[in-house]
Amino acid sequence: MRSDSSSLPTVGPLLSTILSPSDVKRLADDDLTALAAEIRHTLIDSLSRTGGHLGPNLGVVELSIAMHRVFSTPKDKFVFDVSHQGYVHKMLTGRAKQIHTIRTYKGLNGFLLRSESEHDAYGAGHAGTALSAALGMAAARDLSGNDHHIVAVAGDAAFTCGPTLEALNNIAETTKKFIVVLNDNEWSIDKNVGAIARYFNALQTHSAYATVRRQAAEFVEKIAGKAARTLAHKVEEGAKNLFFQNVLFEKFGLRYFGPIDGHDLPLLVRTFEHLKTLHEPVVLHIITEKGRGYQPALDNPGKFHGLGTYKIEDGSTDSTLTPTCSEIFGRTITDLAKKNPKIVAITAAMPGGTKLEIFKNELPDRYFDVGIAEEHAALFACGLATDGFKPFLAIYSTFMQRAYDMIIHDMALQGLPVRLCMDRGGLSGDDGPTHHGLFDIGYLRHVPGIIHMQPKDEDEFVDMLYTMAQYDDGPSAIRFPRGTIKGTPIKDNPQLLEIGKAEVISDGTDVALIGLGTLFEMAERTKEILEQKGLSVALINPRFIKPLDAKVLEKYASQCKVVCTFEDHVIMNGFGASVIEHLHTAGIHTPVERIGWPDQFIEHGKPEVLRELHGISPEHAAAKILAHFQ
Amino acid sequence: MRSDSSSLPTVGPLLSTILSPSDVKRLADDDLTALAAEIRHTLIDSLSRTGGHLGPNLGVVELSIAMHRVFSTPKDKFVFDVSHQGYVHKMLTGRAKQIHTIRTYKGLNGFLLRSESEHDAYGAGHAGTALSAALGMAAARDLSGNDHHIVAVAGDAAFTCGPTLEALNNIAETTKKFIVVLNDNEWSIDKNVGAIARYFNALQTHSAYATVRRQAAEFVEKIAGKAARTLAHKVEEGAKNLFFQNVLFEKFGLRYFGPIDGHDLPLLVRTFEHLKTLHEPVVLHIITEKGRGYQPALDNPGKFHGLGTYKIEDGSTDSTLTPTCSEIFGRTITDLAKKNPKIVAITAAMPGGTKLEIFKNELPDRYFDVGIAEEHAALFACGLATDGFKPFLAIYSTFMQRAYDMIIHDMALQGLPVRLCMDRGGLSGDDGPTHHGLFDIGYLRHVPGIIHMQPKDEDEFVDMLYTMAQYDDGPSAIRFPRGTIKGTPIKDNPQLLEIGKAEVISDGTDVALIGLGTLFEMAERTKEILEQKGLSVALINPRFIKPLDAKVLEKYASQCKVVCTFEDHVIMNGFGASVIEHLHTAGIHTPVERIGWPDQFIEHGKPEVLRELHGISPEHAAAKILAHFQ
Repeated sequence: MRSDSSSLPTVGPLLSTILSPSDVKRLADDDLTALAAEIRHTLIDSLSRTGGHLGPNLGVVELSIAMHRVFSTPKDKFVFDVSHQGYVHKMLTGRAKQIHTIRTYKGLNGFLLRSESEHDAYGAGHAGTALSAALGMAAARDLSGNDHHIVAVAGDAAFTCGPTLEALNNIAETTKKFIVVLNDNEWSIDKNVGAIARYFNALQTHSAYATVRRQAAEFVEKIAGKAARTLAHKVEEGAKNLFFQNVLFEKFGLRYFGPIDGHDLPLLVRTFEHLKTLHEPVVLHIITEKGRGYQPALDNPGKFHGLGTYKIEDGSTDSTLTPTCSEIFGRTITDLAKKNPKIVAITAAMPGGTKLEIFKNELPDRYFDVGIAEEHAALFACGLATDGFKPFLAIYSTFMQRAYDMIIHDMALQGLPVRLCMDRGGLSGDDGPTHHGLFDIGYLRHVPGIIHMQPKDEDEFVDMLYTMAQYDDGPSAIRFPRGTIKGTPIKDNPQLLEIGKAEVISDGTDVALIGLGTLFEMAERTKEILEQKGLSVALINPRFIKPLDAKVLEKYASQCKVVCTFEDHVIMNGFGASVIEHLHTAGIHTPVERIGWPDQFIEHGKPEVLRELHGISPEHAAAKILAHFQ
Repeated sequence: MRSDSSSLPTVGPLLSTILSPSDVKRLADDDLTALAAEIRHTLIDSLSRTGGHLGPNLGVVELSIAMHRVFSTPKDKFVFDVSHQGYVHKMLTGRAKQIHTIRTYKGLNGFLLRSESEHDAYGAGHAGTALSAALGMAAARDLSGNDHHIVAVAGDAAFTCGPTLEALNNIAETTKKFIVVLNDNEWSIDKNVGAIARYFNALQTHSAYATVRRQAAEFVEKIAGKAARTLAHKVEEGAKNLFFQNVLFEKFGLRYFGPIDGHDLPLLVRTFEHLKTLHEPVVLHIITEKGRGYQPALDNPGKFHGLGTYKIEDGSTDSTLTPTCSEIFGRTITDLAKKNPKIVAITAAMPGGTKLEIFKNELPDRYFDVGIAEEHAALFACGLATDGFKPFLAIYSTFMQRAYDMIIHDMALQGLPVRLCMDRGGLSGDDGPTHHGLFDIGYLRHVPGIIHMQPKDEDEFVDMLYTMAQYDDGPSAIRFPRGTIKGTPIKDNPQLLEIGKAEVISDGTDVALIGLGTLFEMAERTKEILEQKGLSVALINPRFIKPLDAKVLEKYASQCKVVCTFEDHVIMNGFGASVIEHLHTAGIHTPVERIGWPDQFIEHGKPEVLRELHGISPEHAAAKILAHFQ
């Protein structure tokens, strides 16, 4: 099972014949297990080269095969929550031979995309959307008088999520034909939290589980083939006695089936055949193992949820020596909190991604993981802030969109000093448009009184976190990129920054370059090009997006002939737009060129590839600026 | 009980003595019922003059008295969900004599405000935030080693709301001392929906309810005064047998008490005394009557949830002859849907406010009320759109902030044609900052591919809705004000508007006035002033915020010496900012003056008062423009 990195990943003999879901239906029952093995082999081999969500996909191999065995997409609709577990579905819907391109520029996306295949009924990347979207599809079907099936597949973690719970509240009133698969692996991105997780656990670990599971299997074996409508009542009565009653779901008007072994293919197939015949919304609770079939992924499910390239033999990955921004964040907040008992840290199910695991390990009492529940996380932080605490809320830029109302209505309006710490602020790269953090300047800059900043390097990042810890007058936000910025060393004692004060790196009279955060380095390189052309170039690190440093902006825009802003954000309504708005109001009409992302969703791929493609480079910036001097 | 409108509303003899919650504790038990009657009298009298949330407050008179009798704010913290039911709390915390100023400029706010009183532990205006914020307070208390009480009061409708459900999932893991009061009146703003509402209903209408309620009352009477810690176990065991078991809450790790009569003051007081002694999170389910004590409000709870002035005798209100935008919206969408079976309408618990009740009555199959669940509503609309339906999603501008992630991640990214219909787009007036819709241009203008528009009058409003019905290429949004725009008659057949095309009303060469939506009329009046000064004035109705009409903008900005934009939105990152951004990029540096709201939260009050205060007037606009010609 060792891959030759120069060749394409192996696609086995059975998998090679699967060009569409109808080919899954043509296989003999006995071949299905072999198909599952081939899929796992290809996944492990292929993702070792590209990275990706290995663990979740190894967990749903049998589930995906069974679904395509029983249902018929695109007529029937599958909606996968988050859809990071959709690789197997991709492989079974004509994309097996492209799986090695996943998450690479122009290759398959790492999530489902409606534009990628007619079998992808719904795209996603954020959690908790599947039940609601699927319910909309069910309502559409019912209104149209159609009878196809809608299957929503959601992990246990999705049930900590507001939209999922809102959807649950609406299912029974909306449709009588709806299948929810609760894919329970006890892991979301990190270990699950909350009462619902405990509840699922209790169901699963019930003392009678092992026995009942076997009985259930035998029961379903017996009814196989007999699931005609006339037998439905009898079957259901039988099921009632054999399966656990799940009160929670039944309170929501869903009939509950399970828990069953999510790796038992014949059982899955027969259960779905039965569920197809029912005329009421149902939830099927299946137990799966994240990383099934690959020991390193079983040993370390957190790491193998989603990762970069790894060695197949042992699952080892290259460790980078330069600490990432996430690591610096986790370390710095923990160190600050050790000196200040009022600092608390909150994550929405991402202690690993945000590196708050450092805080969790060292200061567990002041660490709160609330599950995938960004709205609650933000409100909970507000509650803590009312009582003099200093909450650091660590949520990726793109997921912070979930807490948007709370940022305005709860934090800013009440002036509560919650610290919004937005990792993945800027292009996220391989994960694509659902994960890029390219809108947070636009959605925050009109929020009254908010402070928003972005550091030019790692050392300044720590200064900013230190400054946020001191700032209690209202909400403050920081955006920082995935990975590293410049890799600068960090000084021993952080420096308190003056709110709203830019850093002037060098003076100049022809061009003023304003390089925000991650793209400050690009401004530096642009300066070199322009200076070689004989221009006098001012270089400014703005530090603050809001409030802008009016004095510095106005001075340099007045004394220079051209201003150029750099930002890892869409230019429409971004940092440069804010500079233009400010200068215009001040009556300064110096042209402002802007380097940033265009007004469109940005595809997935390596940042350097995408930047080049969209003209985000020192050469491009220099050319735009030089045009003003010709 | 007839008010003399020239005098101040009556404040009874007992209520007059209540200057702080300690005065509630000083009253004899026997006086409490009389106090409740006085409070009701003042509420009915006072709100007949100012308008306000009468029904909800009449429902919580006894609850509020009991809470202040047993707990001690500001040390103990009350968090009222939405907080429109906080008037009685205000009256008991030193604000009884100001209650007649409620919702008027410089008077009391219609919701709780931390800045208004130390007894207002948390402000709100949007639903579903109380449990989360209160849980944050509980975590803060526990970390600080304090022992005060935290009581979250939420209506049954809050339990259809994602953040509430996310909070429920986290309570048991976070604290052992937490009281949730479920104030169950079967009504949110409109009639409740969903499985949870049905569930609460079932608890309430259980055949044994009447008996058990009496037994429970007697039981609690008996334990009064004995609730010492040593007796706790026994008490709880007793409670277990007497009160209904509420499985839903218990699954979430909350001990359930109830349902009890929320108007039985002694019972409420004694129950709270008991709950204070417990060392586990609890929910107390109380049944209240919205509008209690005022027959017109009991007869019509929907109308009396929140309303303007009314006659005390019969609750009658002045009806306006000019239809409001909400009424035109409800009527138009219904008429369009009758001709097009693909049109569906979705509301988040506001059929009355959005006037989708018209649609509900005439086309019930295509009408969906999902409860206070904006995230689910938006996703559900997306699901419908994937299958060729044309969903109109009617959510107030300020509440649309709850669906922000879905607008980007689900609608825009997937190009799904969901129609965002944002009532209260602009200043909402009396309700204040939690209800003003002053940010939607800022948060939508960088969303790739979205269409966003605002009509200058009622007739154009219908044209725009008609145009949205045809537009299937992606999401579209419309903002329209509370009340009327100009009151224009509506032509028989709506006109299809060209997307992104502005309407040039008159040509001119000195000044170009661009009046968006509600403020178009102000641009017209400004034009008159400027023309009297001899200026040549172009008047433009932009219609579209995105995409902007580049051609018209560039032409008039080029041929005029000054541009002035008018918008019912904050100017920071608003429509005018978008115009400046566009013109700057096109190399046109004509000064753009902007009329709109400043970069701060706007208080409550009549729109005309607030506009004048913030310089939003034709005179002010004309003065700014004329300064360029001096």
